[in-house]
Amino acid sequence: MNKGALALLIHGGTENWSPQRWKGRFDDVCGDRRVLLLPDAAFDPADVHYAAVWKPAPGELAAFPNLRVIFNLGAGVDALMADSSLPQVPLVRVAVGDLTQRMTEYVTLHVLMHHRQELYLRASQREKRWQPKFQWPASAVSVGVMGLGTLGADAAEVLKRIGFRVAGWSRSARQIEGIECFHGQGQLAPFLARTDILVCLLPLTPDTRHILNRGLFAKLNRSGPTGAPVLINAGRGGLQNEVDILSCLDDGTLGAASLDVFAHEPLPAESPFWTHPKVVLTPHNAADTDPDEISKYVARQIERFEAGAALDNVVDPARGY
Amino acid sequence: MNKGALALLIHGGTENWSPQRWKGRFDDVCGDRRVLLLPDAAFDPADVHYAAVWKPAPGELAAFPNLRVIFNLGAGVDALMADSSLPQVPLVRVAVGDLTQRMTEYVTLHVLMHHRQELYLRASQREKRWQPKFQWPASAVSVGVMGLGTLGADAAEVLKRIGFRVAGWSRSARQIEGIECFHGQGQLAPFLARTDILVCLLPLTPDTRHILNRGLFAKLNRSGPTGAPVLINAGRGGLQNEVDILSCLDDGTLGAASLDVFAHEPLPAESPFWTHPKVVLTPHNAADTDPDEISKYVARQIERFEAGAALDNVVDPARGY
Ligand SMILES: NC(=O)c1ccc[n+]([C@@H]2O[C@H](COP(=O)([O-])OP(=O)(O)OC[C@H]3O[C@@H](n4cnc5c(N)ncnc54)[C@H](OP(=O)(O)O)[C@@H]3O)[C@@H](O)[C@H]2O)c1
Ligand SMILES: NC(=O)c1ccc[n+]([C@@H]2O[C@H](COP(=O)([O-])OP(=O)(O)OC[C@H]3O[C@@H](n4cnc5c(N)ncnc54)[C@H](OP(=O)(O)O)[C@@H]3O)[C@@H](O)[C@H]2O)c1
Repeated sequence: MNKGALALLIHGGTENWSPQRWKGRFDDVCGDRRVLLLPDAAFDPADVHYAAVWKPAPGELAAFPNLRVIFNLGAGVDALMADSSLPQVPLVRVAVGDLTQRMTEYVTLHVLMHHRQELYLRASQREKRWQPKFQWPASAVSVGVMGLGTLGADAAEVLKRIGFRVAGWSRSARQIEGIECFHGQGQLAPFLARTDILVCLLPLTPDTRHILNRGLFAKLNRSGPTGAPVLINAGRGGLQNEVDILSCLDDGTLGAASLDVFAHEPLPAESPFWTHPKVVLTPHNAADTDPDEISKYVARQIERFEAGAALDNVVDPARGY
Repeated sequence: MNKGALALLIHGGTENWSPQRWKGRFDDVCGDRRVLLLPDAAFDPADVHYAAVWKPAPGELAAFPNLRVIFNLGAGVDALMADSSLPQVPLVRVAVGDLTQRMTEYVTLHVLMHHRQELYLRASQREKRWQPKFQWPASAVSVGVMGLGTLGADAAEVLKRIGFRVAGWSRSARQIEGIECFHGQGQLAPFLARTDILVCLLPLTPDTRHILNRGLFAKLNRSGPTGAPVLINAGRGGLQNEVDILSCLDDGTLGAASLDVFAHEPLPAESPFWTHPKVVLTPHNAADTDPDEISKYVARQIERFEAGAALDNVVDPARGY
C-alpha cells in the first residue's frame, strides 16, 4: 500500500528558507513517502494526506479531499485561522526546542538592552561621552511576560535566572516555579501594575488583537527604576495599535520599545518606527524556523499519527491558538 | 573595650557612589564601631584596625600601625598590588552576588548583541532596510570565557542555559558541569581554537598583562558561523594591547569587540575606539559596586574575623589576585 503523500505549500520563502530547501529537508526525513512541492509537482489531489504550509493562499488547502492533518511551518497560526475554507482536520503548529531557544535569545537580548540603558550608552559613544548613569540591578526590575506558553515560559525562566523579578500572564491559570503567575482579564491590571518591562509573546486571536494599546500601556508601573515602562513585542503585529505606541513613546507613557513584528511587513519605508529614537526594530527575525528541526518534527508526528498516537500541539479552533 | 575603628579611603568616587554615601552605608551596618571617612575625620591612626579602600594613594595605607585587614571595595586588586608599601596584612576583595549578577547581565547582553548581529540590525534600521540575514542558533556558537572565577563561572552558566557551547580557561584546573574547562598556558591554544566569541574576565596580574594581543586573537576560531571572532573584555584595560585590537579589527582578524575597560580611563577623546564601527564601548560600568551589599559584606567579615573565623576571598600576594 502506498503511503499518503505530503504536500508542501510554501509561499513567501526567503533566500535562506527557499521552498526548494524545505523540499530537500523533507525528502531527507520522509523515507518512502512522496513529498510534493506545490504548485509544480504533478499528482492526484486525492493522494495527499498531509500538508505542510507556510502562508498558503486562502482556499488552497480545500483542494485535497483526503487531507488528514495540516502542519503549519511556524508557531503562529493566525493567518490560517482567518481562512474560512480551511479543511476541518487537525491543525498542528510548531513547538520545537530550536525555535524556543531562538526566541529566548531575542527576549533576553532586548530586555537586557533596555535594562542596561543601551540606547543611552550608544548615544554616549557617538558623542564621545564617558558618563555612566546610575545602573539599577536586575533584581530591582520587574519583567512581565504576556503569554506563558512554549515561548513565554522559557524566556521567563532565563530572565529569572539572570535576576529579574518575573511575572507572566496567560488565559488559564499556570504555575511556574519562581514566576508570579497571573491569568485572565481579571488579573491583567495587577499584572501590568507591577511591570516595568513588558514582553509580549501572545498568539494573535480575536481576543488579543490590538491588546497592546494606550489603555494597557497606561496601566504599567510608572514608579519603577526605569521611570517609563518599556514594550517588547515579538508576538504578531496585529497585537499592537501602532498609532498608540508612537503617541505613548512621544508623551512618555512608554520609555522605549523593541518591535520585531508589525501590522504591515516588510515595514513600509514611510513608517515613523524606522527613525524613532526610542524604537529598536528588527525585521521579524526574533525566532527563525530551522527547516532541519521542523521537517524532523513533522515527519515524527506523521509516523506517530499513523501508528494511532495523538498529535502534539494541535490548535484549538475555538481558542484560535 | 573599644572596637578597632574602620577607616574609609575612597578616591575617585562618582556622583552616585560618593564617599559620603559609602560612609552612610557603613555607619548603618557597623553598630558601635567607629567609621572614619578620611582624610577629614580626626582620629588616632593607632585606633584603626580595618581599612576599606577604593583607589587609595600609594603609601596611604602604611600610616596605620595596627592595621589588621584591608578590604578593597571592588573585585579587582591590580591597583593595590602595585603599591610596594602595602601593609603585609590580609587583603580581602569583593565577591558578592550583586556584583556577580551585574557582570553576568553585561556579559550575556554583549554576547547576545554580537551573536544576534545587532551592529548589522541597527545599521539596517538607520538605512530603513528590512533585510534579515541568516541567523545561526546559539547552539552553533562557541563562547570561551577567560577566567573561571566568581564572575566567569556565573556568566558561563547563564550562557550555557541560553544554549551556547561554552568553554572556560583558568590558571588551575576547574570542573564545571556542562562547561568545557581548559587551564594553564598549555591548554590556551586549544581553548582559543574552538572559540568564536571570547569573553575576558581575568584579573590583571604580571602574568595576564597584555594577554589580549594579536598573537592570541590569531589563534581564535576562524571557521565558526560568525566568520571573524569577537572579543569582549570586561576585566581590566591592562589586559589588552589596544593597538593590536584596532589593527585586528581593521584587517579582519577580529570581527567586532565590546570593551568596558581601557588602558586610560576615562577614555581620551582622541581614542579611535569611540568612532570605530566595529566597537561597542561602555564606560567601565559592566558591574557597578553596590554600597549596600558591599558594606554588609565587609561588616560581616569583620565580625567573623574578630570571632576567630577565617576571612573569605583573601588575595594571594604571590598570584596577585
Ligand atoms: N516573532 C517571531 O519570530 C515569532 C516566532 C515564533 C512565534 N511567534 C509568535 O509567538 C506566539 C506564541 O507562541 P507559543 O509557541 O508560545 O504559543 P503557545 O504555546 O500557544 O502559548 C500562547 C500563550 O498565550 C496565552 N494566551 C493566548 N490567548 C490569550 C488571552 N486571550 N489572554 C491571555 N493569555 C492568552 C496562552 O494562555 P494559556 O497558557 O492559558 O493557553 C499561552 O500561555 C505565536 O502565536 C506567534 O504569533 C513569533
Ligand atoms: N568591568 C568591571 O566593571 C569589573 C567589575 C568587577 C570585576 N572586574 C574584573 O574582573 C576580574 C575577575 O573577577 P573575579 O571575581 O571573577 O576574580 P576571581 O574569582 O579571582 O577569578 C579569577 C579567574 O581568573 C583566572 N586566572 C587568574 N590568573 C590567570 C592566569 N595567569 N592564567 C589563567 N587564568 C588565570 C583564575 O584562575 P583560577 O581559577 O585557577 O584561580 C580565576 O578563574 C577582577 O579581577 C576585575 O579586574 C571588572
